[in-house]
Amino acid sequence: MKIWLKSLITLMAIGAIAACGGEKSSSGEIAEQKQYKWKLVTSWPKNFPGLGTAPENFAKLVNDMSNGRLSIKVYGAGEIVPGFEVFDAVSQGTAQMGHAGAYYWKGKMPASPIFTALPFGLNAQETNGWLHYGGGIELWRELYKPFGVIPFAGGNTGVQSAGWFKKEIKTVDDLKGLKIRIPGLGGEVMKKLGAVPVALTGGELFTSLQSGAIDATEWVGPYNDLAFGFYKVTDHYYASGWHEPGAMLEFTVNEKAFNELPKDLQTIIEVATRAVNQDMLDEYTARNQTALETLKNKHGIEAKTLPPEVMKALKQASEEVIAEQIAADPTFAKIMKSYSAFQQKVAAYHKISEVEYYNNREL
Amino acid sequence: MKIWLKSLITLMAIGAIAACGGEKSSSGEIAEQKQYKWKLVTSWPKNFPGLGTAPENFAKLVNDMSNGRLSIKVYGAGEIVPGFEVFDAVSQGTAQMGHAGAYYWKGKMPASPIFTALPFGLNAQETNGWLHYGGGIELWRELYKPFGVIPFAGGNTGVQSAGWFKKEIKTVDDLKGLKIRIPGLGGEVMKKLGAVPVALTGGELFTSLQSGAIDATEWVGPYNDLAFGFYKVTDHYYASGWHEPGAMLEFTVNEKAFNELPKDLQTIIEVATRAVNQDMLDEYTARNQTALETLKNKHGIEAKTLPPEVMKALKQASEEVIAEQIAADPTFAKIMKSYSAFQQKVAAYHKISEVEYYNNREL
Repeated sequence: MKIWLKSLITLMAIGAIAACGGEKSSSGEIAEQKQYKWKLVTSWPKNFPGLGTAPENFAKLVNDMSNGRLSIKVYGAGEIVPGFEVFDAVSQGTAQMGHAGAYYWKGKMPASPIFTALPFGLNAQETNGWLHYGGGIELWRELYKPFGVIPFAGGNTGVQSAGWFKKEIKTVDDLKGLKIRIPGLGGEVMKKLGAVPVALTGGELFTSLQSGAIDATEWVGPYNDLAFGFYKVTDHYYASGWHEPGAMLEFTVNEKAFNELPKDLQTIIEVATRAVNQDMLDEYTARNQTALETLKNKHGIEAKTLPPEVMKALKQASEEVIAEQIAADPTFAKIMKSYSAFQQKVAAYHKISEVEYYNNREL
Repeated sequence: MKIWLKSLITLMAIGAIAACGGEKSSSGEIAEQKQYKWKLVTSWPKNFPGLGTAPENFAKLVNDMSNGRLSIKVYGAGEIVPGFEVFDAVSQGTAQMGHAGAYYWKGKMPASPIFTALPFGLNAQETNGWLHYGGGIELWRELYKPFGVIPFAGGNTGVQSAGWFKKEIKTVDDLKGLKIRIPGLGGEVMKKLGAVPVALTGGELFTSLQSGAIDATEWVGPYNDLAFGFYKVTDHYYASGWHEPGAMLEFTVNEKAFNELPKDLQTIIEVATRAVNQDMLDEYTARNQTALETLKNKHGIEAKTLPPEVMKALKQASEEVIAEQIAADPTFAKIMKSYSAFQQKVAAYHKISEVEYYNNREL
C-alpha cells in the first residue's frame, strides 16, 4: 500500500467519528449533513501569485468536492494573524488550517527547514519522492505532533534563483560584507562566507534595494521576481540557485479539527493538498520560462550563473552549516539520516536519467 | 484562474445536472443520494506495480471522498477488454473509465503519442507544466472529443531507460538489423537507423529475449525492469533514455457518463486524477533509485549510457520522424506547434535552473 495512503489511514483511525454526518441510518433515512466552516491563514498577501493563489484553489476544490459541507475561507498574512504566526494559530486552533513554509518555524523546531528545502539538497521531484515514498512525511508528522498540527505538502516552486545583486559576484571575496536578504539555512551559509544575511518580508525588498539598505536579495524565481521589478534596481541576476533547490510549501491542519471530520472530508483534504502540491509546480514550470523570456527580451536582463569557485565555497559552507545543525539537534540528525540516504541514491539515479537526458536533448 | 480549473468548469457547464443527488431541496429535506457503480478498464495486468496500482489507488480515493456514492471497480487487461481496446471500450460506454497510454491509439489518432511522450521531448515536470498551464490539456480534450472521451493525466514514470541489449552498442552500425521491442515513435526512429522494431506486450519480453526472438528491449526503468529480470538474459543495460523522457499515462472518462454525475463527483474525479498523476512519479522516483542500487550491488549490472554518436543519430532521426508526422497530419502539426513552443522556452529555463543545479550539487 502507498505510504501516503497508509499514513492517512493511520490519521483516520485516530479520528474516525462513528456517527458522522450524512451517513445512512439503519432505518434508511439520511441524516442532516453537518456543515463545517474553517479558516485557513497564510503567510502571503491575499492572492499573491502562486504562493497565495494555491490555498485559494485548495479551498475551492474542497468546497466543490464536499458539496459545500466543508467551506474554507482563506486569509492573507495579517488579516487574522501575521504571516510568521500561522503555525501558532493552527496549533492553538485560532484557525483550523494554515499555508506557509516549514522553515519559518525554525525557532520552535530547528529541524523544520528540512521540510522546505536544504542548500544543495533535494529538488522538487526528489522532495516529493522522499516525502511520499521515502518516509519523509512520517518524520514531518512526528515533528509537528507535539503541537497538535498535521502537515501536508502544499506546493513547490522548483529551483529558486540565487538572486539579484547590485554588484557582480566574481569571487568569494565579493560576498564579504554584502547585505543580502536570504532566510533560513541559506542565510547561515552566507554568513559563513562573510555576508550579512538580513530578514525582510517580500513587500520590503524593492524599496530596501532601492534605498541601499540591502545590496542583494533572493526571492523565488523569474515569475515572482519579475512581478516585484527587481530588474529596475539591480544589475546582476543570478538565475541558477543553490539554497532552495525545490522549495516546498506546507498546508497545516489542527489535529483536533481534523479528527472531528468524517472520513470522506479527511480524504478530500488529503487529496486536494496532493493536487495543489503538483499544480503549483506545474504553474511555476510554465510561468518561470515565460518570465525569463520577458526579463531578457523586454528588460535586457541576462540570466547569469555564479562562478564555479563561488558555488564550491557555498557548497562547502552548506555542508558545515548542516553538520552544525546535526550536532546541535538530535531531531535534525534523525531526519537528516533519512533525507541524506535518499539523496545519495536519488542523485546517483538522476545523474544517469534526468541529467543525462537534459544533456542529450541539447546534443 | 487556473487553466485546469477553467477546463473543469467548462466540462461541468456542459454536464451540470440541476437535480443531482444529495442536494438540499427547497423544503429543507435531503433527497436520497444516487449511487454510481463504474467500471475502469486498464492496459495493465491487475495490480501491476506502478502502472496497475495507480488506478486502484484512484478508485480507493474516489470511493472514500464520495463516501461510497461513486464506486469504481478496476479491471486488468483482458478481464473485460484486451489492453489495446481500452479507448474503444470507454468511447462506447462498455466501461465508464480507462487507464492506459495515449500512444496506444496512434492508429486511430496519429497525434495521440504526443500525450504520452515524444523522443527528445518534454520530461515529466515539463509535461505537467505544458498540460496544465501551457494549453496541452485543452488540445488533448479536443483530440478525444469526437470519440466522446475525456482525458486526464494519469501518472508519469519519469525518464524511461533506453533498455536492455544482448550486445554492446558502440556505433550506429550496431543498431542495423537489431530486433528491438520499442513501441510508438521511438520504434519509427529505430527503424530509420536500420533496427527492426517489434511490438510485444510486457509479459512476452523475458522469454522473447531468452529465446533470441528479439535482441533488445526497452520497458520502463530500473523499478519495473528489475521485476521482469531482464538482467538475467542480457549483458548491457543502457539506463539513460531518449524515446520517452517523461512517459505520461492517461485516465479516460466516457463523456456521457461524466456529464451525468453531479458536480461534486466530477470534481472528485478531476482532483483524484491529479493526485494520482503526481503520486506515480513520486513512487517511481523513490523506487527506481533503490532498484538501480539492487541491480548494481546484487546483480552486478553496470548502468551504461549510449555513446554520444549514437545519441546524436537518434536525435537526428527523431527530428525526421516528427517532421514526417507533422507533414502527414494537420492535427499533429497543430498540437506540436504548442508543444514545441513550450519546449523551446522551458528547455532554456531548465538549462539554467534544474540542470545547473544538478551539476552544482556534484561540485
